[in-house]
Amino acid sequence: MESNRRNILRGMAGAALAAPALAQQALAQASGTNNGAAPTAPVNPNGANPSAAEQKVMADQHMQTMQRVLGPGLWGQEQIAMLVYPKFTALDLVGPHYFLACLFGAKVHLVTTEKDLAPVASDLGLAIQPTVMMADAPKDLDVLFVPGGTEGTLSVMARVDTMAWIKDRASRARYVTSVCTGSMVLAKAGLLKGKRATSHWAAREALKDFGAIPVDGRVVSDGNVLTGAGVTAGMDFAIALAEKLRGRAYAEALLLQGEYAPEPPIRGGTLATTPPPVRDMMAAMFAPIEEQFRAMAPG
Amino acid sequence: MESNRRNILRGMAGAALAAPALAQQALAQASGTNNGAAPTAPVNPNGANPSAAEQKVMADQHMQTMQRVLGPGLWGQEQIAMLVYPKFTALDLVGPHYFLACLFGAKVHLVTTEKDLAPVASDLGLAIQPTVMMADAPKDLDVLFVPGGTEGTLSVMARVDTMAWIKDRASRARYVTSVCTGSMVLAKAGLLKGKRATSHWAAREALKDFGAIPVDGRVVSDGNVLTGAGVTAGMDFAIALAEKLRGRAYAEALLLQGEYAPEPPIRGGTLATTPPPVRDMMAAMFAPIEEQFRAMAPG
Repeated sequence: MESNRRNILRGMAGAALAAPALAQQALAQASGTNNGAAPTAPVNPNGANPSAAEQKVMADQHMQTMQRVLGPGLWGQEQIAMLVYPKFTALDLVGPHYFLACLFGAKVHLVTTEKDLAPVASDLGLAIQPTVMMADAPKDLDVLFVPGGTEGTLSVMARVDTMAWIKDRASRARYVTSVCTGSMVLAKAGLLKGKRATSHWAAREALKDFGAIPVDGRVVSDGNVLTGAGVTAGMDFAIALAEKLRGRAYAEALLLQGEYAPEPPIRGGTLATTPPPVRDMMAAMFAPIEEQFRAMAPG
Repeated sequence: MESNRRNILRGMAGAALAAPALAQQALAQASGTNNGAAPTAPVNPNGANPSAAEQKVMADQHMQTMQRVLGPGLWGQEQIAMLVYPKFTALDLVGPHYFLACLFGAKVHLVTTEKDLAPVASDLGLAIQPTVMMADAPKDLDVLFVPGGTEGTLSVMARVDTMAWIKDRASRARYVTSVCTGSMVLAKAGLLKGKRATSHWAAREALKDFGAIPVDGRVVSDGNVLTGAGVTAGMDFAIALAEKLRGRAYAEALLLQGEYAPEPPIRGGTLATTPPPVRDMMAAMFAPIEEQFRAMAPG
């Protein structure tokens, strides 16, 4: 039994792990550049080390299933830029990143506002390594994404270079998006004028000062602008965006892969559902945040 | 109006931003080492730049409210170690990190399995900078946390140094915890024998092979072991852990701060709720994963 197990382990990398390779092959076929290379190490369900011919058969089977179930959504070539700036809220970005980076063929860029590719510390200290600087990021984006924060977000809104980059990329982007107070950055760039949008509850009403229409929604869509509410809304946002990019079946597959069937162990998460003592304490504590964002609006 | 706004902005860092300083002061008072320093820049709700005396009054008011609402849960000195290893799933860790790093006074360590503090690439490429190496991490932990993954997790389970470190820290930890297939790492270390635990749905049943009792639950608690299901279950897990560490009111505050009131835009996230074509495709794709984890069990 044990040696059989070891054989299984040695003989495969797992269909799930091979999936990106399969998708790449599919993409190559679709674009007419298939070089005929077999995908890496698909699995033989019987456990023995599969031969090259067996591998080819299994790869073809997986491919056919994926093509049948996911349709044209199986492959894509989206260019996705996620902005990383000092003291951003890491979860605002990493939630959506998980789902978007699982889109076969899509390319996700972590674009730093800083002068080199050194890791950028988030508001809670956790530092993430960017992949590209603003100047080197793709000019034409399918998705421009901005995460939120408090102090760091206010700083970015005051930076001429970053705001110019956002305006430029947004002018050609297929989707202009944010989670949490990232929408304040979009608003400051003049991208939300007359648009329905959301933000973290503590800042949302400040959107008005920038000419936007604040909406108390978890994910708000208006034209090519898609905004998510505070922090954990990034998950809901990402599923909604994935569905726009790749269709319902792909979004369902992502939901299952990320086991996104949330069950908060206690009630709350909104002002309306939080017990009054905690709600009042938090509302008082966060009240200055809205004022701070308001102060960034055009006079 | 505009100049008033600018004054507000200049005059304050915001109560929310000052909260850590307030908590630190509370902690100092509690431990009898208060040096009497005023917290940094609390807010004056009337918008003028507050004097030092006004700052002191406001800080005291905030402190009193927090102490009244949060009780002894307001402060703590937990040592929390989150393991970071090549090809871990970033969201498994960053979800819980958001909530745990918001516990005033707690210290969160990102412990790398590697030989230096270089950023560690996750399975989807996003790299996170660790803060400490295994040898230098605190010996006595309140929380030991292990995130999941596939290929990377299997590799860690085969590493003698990492498994020895986990066994050692777990032997004294107040809570031994995981999200997703991180529970496989705990299982491999012999920490789940006879314990009820969960994991990502694709791997969960493999827990049996390590002597654990697989439970189809979002968050599963058994003694000092707390495990979360796949990826996004890290949010539910973290709220449950925060409540254990700091009580209900603190957990409610975290829920509201992270706006954790999830609304997945489409139905799914479990095998039972995913439409059959997508469910069957994913189940087939992930089937080898369970076998791979099984192959790591003692013979």
